[in-house]
Amino acid sequence: MTETIHNPKFAAADLKRFVRELFECLNVQPNTAQLIAHTLVAASLRGVDSHGMQLIPFYASQLEEGRVDPKATGRVVSENGSILVYDGQNGLGQAVANICCLHTVRLAGRYGLGLAVARESNHFGAAAWWAQQISRAGFIGLVMCNASPAVAPWQGKEPRWGTNPICMAIPGGGREGEGWLLDMATTTVAMGKIYKAHLAGQPDIPSGWAMDANGLPTNSTADALSGLLAPLGGYKGSGLAMMVEMMCGVFSGGAMSTELGGLRIKDRPFRVSQFYLAIDPQRGIGREEFVARAKRFVEQVKSTPAAPGYDEVMVAGDPEWRAEAERLRSGVPVGAGLWKSLTELAERLKVVIPAEV
Amino acid sequence: MTETIHNPKFAAADLKRFVRELFECLNVQPNTAQLIAHTLVAASLRGVDSHGMQLIPFYASQLEEGRVDPKATGRVVSENGSILVYDGQNGLGQAVANICCLHTVRLAGRYGLGLAVARESNHFGAAAWWAQQISRAGFIGLVMCNASPAVAPWQGKEPRWGTNPICMAIPGGGREGEGWLLDMATTTVAMGKIYKAHLAGQPDIPSGWAMDANGLPTNSTADALSGLLAPLGGYKGSGLAMMVEMMCGVFSGGAMSTELGGLRIKDRPFRVSQFYLAIDPQRGIGREEFVARAKRFVEQVKSTPAAPGYDEVMVAGDPEWRAEAERLRSGVPVGAGLWKSLTELAERLKVVIPAEV
Repeated sequence: MTETIHNPKFAAADLKRFVRELFECLNVQPNTAQLIAHTLVAASLRGVDSHGMQLIPFYASQLEEGRVDPKATGRVVSENGSILVYDGQNGLGQAVANICCLHTVRLAGRYGLGLAVARESNHFGAAAWWAQQISRAGFIGLVMCNASPAVAPWQGKEPRWGTNPICMAIPGGGREGEGWLLDMATTTVAMGKIYKAHLAGQPDIPSGWAMDANGLPTNSTADALSGLLAPLGGYKGSGLAMMVEMMCGVFSGGAMSTELGGLRIKDRPFRVSQFYLAIDPQRGIGREEFVARAKRFVEQVKSTPAAPGYDEVMVAGDPEWRAEAERLRSGVPVGAGLWKSLTELAERLKVVIPAEV
Repeated sequence: MTETIHNPKFAAADLKRFVRELFECLNVQPNTAQLIAHTLVAASLRGVDSHGMQLIPFYASQLEEGRVDPKATGRVVSENGSILVYDGQNGLGQAVANICCLHTVRLAGRYGLGLAVARESNHFGAAAWWAQQISRAGFIGLVMCNASPAVAPWQGKEPRWGTNPICMAIPGGGREGEGWLLDMATTTVAMGKIYKAHLAGQPDIPSGWAMDANGLPTNSTADALSGLLAPLGGYKGSGLAMMVEMMCGVFSGGAMSTELGGLRIKDRPFRVSQFYLAIDPQRGIGREEFVARAKRFVEQVKSTPAAPGYDEVMVAGDPEWRAEAERLRSGVPVGAGLWKSLTELAERLKVVIPAEV
């Protein structure tokens, strides 16, 4: 008899309530707990499990072990023209990101372009959530952050940077067929995907995802977990990751390269830096014109005949909008192993566990 | 008896004089001819042959066939806060880019951030030259452009965009060991590399570079020339190329996607769009501090122990600075086939051919 693993499903609203209460019980301010709940459940809804519910045990450990300040929301270091530097003071990433996005949008409203760069911040969930905060305000949002050292430079065998994602959101495009939303690590895959394979008990990962601890390519999930992520396309991924670090850790005056901690690094704070740029299309060809042209461009791309072996051409954001539509209907699945940790945490904190759908 | 192909070498200064005179004889204004000479010879010096002397026959055809206006330098469409939209009016790309970089730097000086986006422009040589114009003025320069449709979206089999490069230059870093300079196509390779293989008579190209006209991967140089370039790392390269197009053709109000012509497309203007962003580190943590931190970060990266099979870790810009040092010493090589076309052009235009070194 084979034992079947049961992955429970939940309504997004129930998960949001659950996550908010968990973090409130971890001494997080109610509005920040709400932000964390929104960002994590939004990512899980969009099928980006690596940046959704899966993060809760790590955030909880950081808080319980005192590696993050649950009350800090940071302070403005300087504002000079359209550029603002922010010190997150080791507050929760979502609290810092929310304030930085508000500043960025305010500055772009005044000057056409606005840039906020935060240092001494923490994990902020998926970058897409924050770029969308900017795009929902009518601006093009470009968000980048540095990350826990896990990637060796091209031809190197020790980590010097992290997944260093690049994310862009445009106004007017919030769902499939209307929009486009880029959120990509500059590695072949995000570390969360390898961790997800590990959680799911998959011994092997595809070629090109990772190197082992000696810098040699590996297909072993375990070796990858203790090894290095591969930069996207070799030296070009290395170049993009360094671009991100130049605009994050270097530009912010915060931690750079191996000075960063990480979600899974116990002995020091994360010290991540984040970059938020807003661009006002109204100061260019006009917002309506930009939105209409972006939609037309997306249509031009999606109309491309499919290559042999494929059914259709999708653009960045499409897989996530489809996952969201499906999970809004049938519930957000949570992996069995993850659910076990979350219920243990909830019991300890005396938070009511949501009912499955 | 095997015939040896002779690839002549020239001093950079002699090539600059030669290129300037060629373009002056093609009715280009002296200062623009000078700019073209500087950008193309600089690329050849840096070992980026695909964006150097190799472009001259294409530029010359465009001019002789009336596809580019040799006198036009464009006009400002709008300037609103820190954002400027420019209409290149089908002038030479170098003339348009030079003016846009001046505007970008002026705006960033005033506001901290400055953005100029040009439409209806032409090929401007290597993006690196223009990002360095911005970085030499003390700003971080980010330059992107759309390009002749030659790349199919991920899972597609018809071209919808071009090599769409991303380029960043930072102040204070102008040579190996001091700096970092990113200039990368969002394809696995630039079209110029396939063309270079063709010029060199190489029948095969590496895997992952290109697809044939039916969207199937190919190793044939000939099939690649009439086929499609592969996006870097599949869907991520597709996402980056669309980011570039969003900020170029879409944002500028110019030609998008298949509306663009190309250097090798005879029946219509190129209509390329270019994006120039300047960021002032003086408005952030201070320019000196930024420059010192960037240098330290580059040192951290270059100090990475090499992976098995490699000698050292290089960063973006290193191979080009090395090529430049070598070619300044021993001359700039020009391929035999290319040199034959150039001498024919020079004889027709009555331009004195430089002596070999």
